[in-house]
Order: sequence, then C-alpha cells, then structure tokens
Amino acid sequence: MTTKLFRDARIHTPVSDGGGCVSWERGALLVRDGLIERVGREDDVVQGLDPSQIDQEIGLGGRCVVPGFVDPHTHMCFSELREKEFATRLSGVPYLEILRSGGGILSSVRSVRSACDETILGRTLKNIHISLSHGTTTVEIKSGYGLDTASEIRLLRLIERVGRQTPVTVVPTFMGAHAVPSEFTDDPEGYVDLLVKEMIPAVSAECTPPFCDVFCEESVFSVPQTRRILDTAREHGMKLKVHADEVTDTGGAALAAEMGAVSAEHLLAAREENLAKMASAGVIAVLLPATAYSLRKPYADARKMLDLGLTVALATDCNPGSSFTQSVPFVFGLAVMNMGMTVDEALYGCTLNAAKAIGVDGSCGSLERNKLADLVVLDGDTPAILAYNCGVAPVLSVYKRGECVVQRTDDRRIN
Amino acid sequence: MTTKLFRDARIHTPVSDGGGCVSWERGALLVRDGLIERVGREDDVVQGLDPSQIDQEIGLGGRCVVPGFVDPHTHMCFSELREKEFATRLSGVPYLEILRSGGGILSSVRSVRSACDETILGRTLKNIHISLSHGTTTVEIKSGYGLDTASEIRLLRLIERVGRQTPVTVVPTFMGAHAVPSEFTDDPEGYVDLLVKEMIPAVSAECTPPFCDVFCEESVFSVPQTRRILDTAREHGMKLKVHADEVTDTGGAALAAEMGAVSAEHLLAAREENLAKMASAGVIAVLLPATAYSLRKPYADARKMLDLGLTVALATDCNPGSSFTQSVPFVFGLAVMNMGMTVDEALYGCTLNAAKAIGVDGSCGSLERNKLADLVVLDGDTPAILAYNCGVAPVLSVYKRGECVVQRTDDRRIN
Repeated sequence: MTTKLFRDARIHTPVSDGGGCVSWERGALLVRDGLIERVGREDDVVQGLDPSQIDQEIGLGGRCVVPGFVDPHTHMCFSELREKEFATRLSGVPYLEILRSGGGILSSVRSVRSACDETILGRTLKNIHISLSHGTTTVEIKSGYGLDTASEIRLLRLIERVGRQTPVTVVPTFMGAHAVPSEFTDDPEGYVDLLVKEMIPAVSAECTPPFCDVFCEESVFSVPQTRRILDTAREHGMKLKVHADEVTDTGGAALAAEMGAVSAEHLLAAREENLAKMASAGVIAVLLPATAYSLRKPYADARKMLDLGLTVALATDCNPGSSFTQSVPFVFGLAVMNMGMTVDEALYGCTLNAAKAIGVDGSCGSLERNKLADLVVLDGDTPAILAYNCGVAPVLSVYKRGECVVQRTDDRRIN
Repeated sequence: MTTKLFRDARIHTPVSDGGGCVSWERGALLVRDGLIERVGREDDVVQGLDPSQIDQEIGLGGRCVVPGFVDPHTHMCFSELREKEFATRLSGVPYLEILRSGGGILSSVRSVRSACDETILGRTLKNIHISLSHGTTTVEIKSGYGLDTASEIRLLRLIERVGRQTPVTVVPTFMGAHAVPSEFTDDPEGYVDLLVKEMIPAVSAECTPPFCDVFCEESVFSVPQTRRILDTAREHGMKLKVHADEVTDTGGAALAAEMGAVSAEHLLAAREENLAKMASAGVIAVLLPATAYSLRKPYADARKMLDLGLTVALATDCNPGSSFTQSVPFVFGLAVMNMGMTVDEALYGCTLNAAKAIGVDGSCGSLERNKLADLVVLDGDTPAILAYNCGVAPVLSVYKRGECVVQRTDDRRIN
C-alpha cells in the first residue's frame, strides 16, 4: 500500500455530474495505490491525515493539474509513415488520384501485411510514447490496416501487446471495415460477407475488442452495409462506433443514433437533424480537428453540436495518412481557436467525454475519488495554456496511476 | 582543432545562390572547429580524408538533416505570461477593450519595468531553450517592453546577457517604438521626440543593436512618425525593420521599400502595389503565421508575395500576447498548410531567408562551406515531416557549431 500526497496544485477537472469544471487554487490529491482517495482544497485533503502514513509528498509548485488526456480515436498501430504521399498531396495531387496510384489506407495495409511484428510494435510504441509526452494516459487504437481475418486478429493482438509494454492504458477497437481491400475491389459486398460471416465471429472469439467501428462513407461502406456489419458486431458483444459523414452526408450520424452507437466520429458533413437524433440517442460526437487541419477542410461545427446538447469528445485521429499527430494539446488548441469551443468544453472533450466515448469513464477522465491518479502537470496556471502556448505542448510532467512517467528535467525547462 | 564527420545523413539545404534546395540521399558533413569544411555526397566528402584526423564520427541513421532554424522576429524577452488575457480574448472580449483595461503590450511593459533581472532572464532563457528543443539555433529578440530610455537599455543588455548563457545565437533589435507608453498617451509626438532625441542616441552609444524596428500601425506609430524614427536610427548606424500593414493598410510596406529597410513584418493587409515596391527594393517579407493563428485572422498571402518575387522569411513572433509560441516547426506547418508555401519555400523561410532578414546569412541559414555547423536532425526522411507530423516537433537532435545541444534520448523516442 503506497500513499502519496500531491500538494500545491491548481487543480482543474471535469466532474462526472456534468455541472462544468471544478477547480481549487491551492488543491491537493491523496493517492493510495494509484487511486485518488481524496481531492480538493489542500487544507481539506490533509485534514486528519497522519503524516507517518504518507509515503511520498509531491509539491507541484502551484502549476495547473488536469486529468491525463484520453485520446478516443486513433489508428496509430501501423508500420510505415506516408511522408512521400503527404508531400504529393501538398503539391496538389487529388486524394483519389493518390488512391488510384496505390496510396491511401491501402498502402498502409500493404506495408502492415508485409511488416514483421517488431516493426509494427516499434512504430506503435513510438507513437504512444510521443502521445504520453504530450499528456495522453489513455488511448484507443483501431485495427483496420489488416483487412483480412488473420491480419486483423494479428493487429488486435499487437495492440494488446503494446498495451502491456507502456504505462498508457490502451483500448482496442476492431475496424475491419476501415476500407475495402484490393482483393475485393470488384466485389465489395463479398468483403462485407467476409466481415459478417467470418471476421467478426473470429475476432470476437479470439480478441474480444470492446468496440467495432465502420467507415461509413461514399465509395467505402454504404449505410446498409454499415448497418449489417454493426448488427453482427453487436450480436457478438461489441459496442458500436461509426466514422460518419466525414466527406459526404450519407446519413451515418442518423444510423449511429438509430443503432444506439456509443459514438460517431468526424461529422464534418452531418446534417443538423441527424445531429439532433444523435443528441436524443446519447451518441457522443468524437471530433478530429487535426484531420480537418491536415486535409485543409473546414472544421466540424462543434459549437452547433454543443448547442444541440451533444456530448463532444476530441481526438487526434493519429494515422499515417490524414492526421499524423500524436498531440492532444495540438487538438485542444485547434478546438479552442477554430471550432468555437471554450477552454472547459475542450478540456471535457479531451478527458471525461473522451473517456465516455471509449467506455473508461468509470476509471479515468476526471480527478475524482476512486478514479486512477492519471495527472498532467501543465506549465501554466490554467488549462488555457494548452491553447495559448500554441505549437508547444506545455506539459511538465505526467503521472499514471500516481507514478511519474514523464518528467521534463532537460535543459528546456529552466525555471 | 576538432574535426567531426557527420555521415549517413539525408541532407537537405537551401543554397546561397538561390537556385532552390539541394539534397543528398546519403550525405555527409566534415566539420572543423564548428565550421562546415565539406558537405555533399558521403563518398565525395570522405574522399582523401585521413581517418586519423577525424576526432569523432557521428552516424545519423539516414535521418533528414536541415540547417538549424533561424527565428528572425521575436519579442521573447519579457517577464510574465498573459494567460488570463488570452482566456479573456478567447471569450470574445475585443482587443481594444482589453487594451483599455490595462492589457496588451502595456501590461507587459508594466511587468517588465517592475521585474528583477533574474525574472526576465529566467523567462527569456526558458523561451530560448524551448525554441532550441524545437530546432532553433539563431534567434532575433526585440526590446520594446521597456519604453523609456533606461528600461530599453536594460532590456537590450539583458538580451545580450541571455546570448552569453545559451548556445543559441541571439541577435538583438531595438524596438523602443513598440507602443506609446502610458506616460505619453496624451502626447504621442512627445514620445517620438524622446525616441529621436534621447533614446536612439543613448541606445546606439551603449548597446549598438544592429537593427531598429518600429510598429507602424493605425493608433500606434503613423507613417511620418515611423519615417522620422527610422531616419534617426539609420543615422545612428542601425539597419531598419518595420512592423508593416498588420491590421490596416497604412502604407508601411511602401515605407519599408522607400527607406531600404532590410525587412517588413506581418504584411497581412499590405496592398499588392506596395508589395511590388518591396520586391523591387529587395526588402524581405517576414511572415508570422502563428500570430494570424492566435488572433484568428486570415494568413498573409505568401503565395502572392512569392509570385511577386519577394524573399519570404518565417518567424514565430514569440510574445506573451498575440503569439505565444517558440516553435518554428509549428510555424513551418502553418505556412505549408495554410499559406500556399511549398516545403522548400518554407525551409528557405525558416533558414536562409530568415538569416538574411537578420543579417547573419554569412554564417548560418544553410549547410554550405565555411558556415557554422548548426544542424537539425529530423525524425523523418525529408523536411516535409515538419508539416506532416503536425503539432509535434519531429526534432531528434540539434547541433550548434558542431556540438550536440539537444538529444532526445528519453523514452519518447523508441526506434
């Protein structure tokens, strides 16, 4: 039993009752075996404490402390960057042409299928560790660069292995329906058959990922195909997610509402009436501003979604094509600067709402009693520093289950 | 005499003859006492070398190597953040209202005037070291938070002191004409008199900063006032810079051309005919995309400027108000994603053209013979990684005069 007292912290955290953030100018956390036992005003937290029972006291110098970030939508398990494709895209070559010449998701599928485990593990761990250094303590990772039964199971197992090799909590999502693999270019329905009849049963028997996600989009998976895949996934015990209305308004948001999905992602093109359906059904909107940034598209209308009563989460979408970033602070900044979200809304989006989107809000996403002591110590007084100090992740240290896992002690931090 | 051989590097660098970037897939650099003696294809560089004369061989694992970044426009010598003001601005309070309630530049003037040297030095060094960790090896720093003779001289001396305490090369610029201090609110012409009759002569006698910069803008310094200040600065041996046409088109760009300024900065509102005058006069356009990002303004039209034949440099504008970032990679990404600049144009902007804008292109800004061995090793194959890996500075190591000054050896970098 280890007991730690974090003191002299400006604590700022979402709370589970949804009534906005709470903060304590001079706050403290009492952490026992990695769980928060007390949190609040330092005077209250230390009240009645026997100093001999405190194993370690950690003074945080009045810095702002927020919950460890939760990144609820990534594709960061891959093997190779697509730096050349990015440069080609920058030079103005349309994405469809890049796809035709073998680029895009399918090029990552080719490289993942031919890569050894160590290459994929190395790249994924590297992505996770960059995420961690930017404050992420929980991350969702989707499969979807395998696109055949054996390769998808292999990726889900690698994602599990990665989770055992890093302090970051890793939540896997099955996304066999990420694209139609080249073997099925002329028979996309045949791939949906494979998903429904073979892949989902096999994956759920061998790996039990908690979520199934489908890329519902024009010339990817149609609404009826998506419904069929998600129906099967639900029968096999998975919860549902939908990449919905990213490029075209195909009605993915409405489908997510109809099927009671946990979340719908992207939503750049979603119609207001379908967003309202999501709000009624309690589907979380997971927004990915770095993808809009990287693809030079207009941002999702977060303000409208919030005003409709939707729960909004934010994610990096970390992947080698449309959004190669591991940084939640970067996403936070884009949301505040370009999407009309307030600092507190963005903080909810990167912590508690993100945790809800991947079903881990019982254990993380806010600094509350009985949750994990996953903490980010910021180099500022308030979470606004995350947008204010733009392009720089103002993260001084990160604690996972009360253990220090990132500490900036190098010469970059002077004072 | 120390001789180092950097090998196995994908070298990509601007060159002084202006004919676009050159690159070597498997390149090398021979560095003697901090200066580049040879650079090129590894086979050519090592030709005829006596291995016993090499003191150190550094293999760079095929990573991309570019010149150390030059940040030619910052106000990073200050004492306090303005995090609360940022949050107020986010909430929609107009900047003029913030100014009236004591915020803006004048609030930094108040805090700098009352701060001790150690506070200012600490904050400035911290800014510089964050810059360095993002690849900056040369930085310009403006005074301008003193706004009286003694305070401006003090700041310029502190900037010089900072330069002696960091490996980063620091170039000071005198900017007493950054704002009209509150003592002169009712008599701005009186402040111009002070600048011309007392401050510039005193500053040039005591500190000899190479540049004088003026904030030429509606309700700051008019074009005639700017001309008068810059005329005096030139008489005292300083080269000229102008904050021109940032908010309104007052004709600052034309003034910069007329007076033969080395550079004009911002230029968001500059008219095309005045940009053309700048091009004819050889005035460098220093663009500050992080400021547009932070103020939610449209970006300067870099594409038009380049097409007019202007030399374009990029800078962070690092300051506690309108652009609190120390990251050149962030600026590079904004330029490529939002300003229509190619990767090579942005690289010129952050290296050789930036060096020209602060008069140090004789010693840095490109990897060429007889220049300083200021190198950035990127975590990618090409400089495109700087935009591709958005929100994350993909800098593995930094060398200043051939010495390693930043090395990512922490757990964030796996492979």
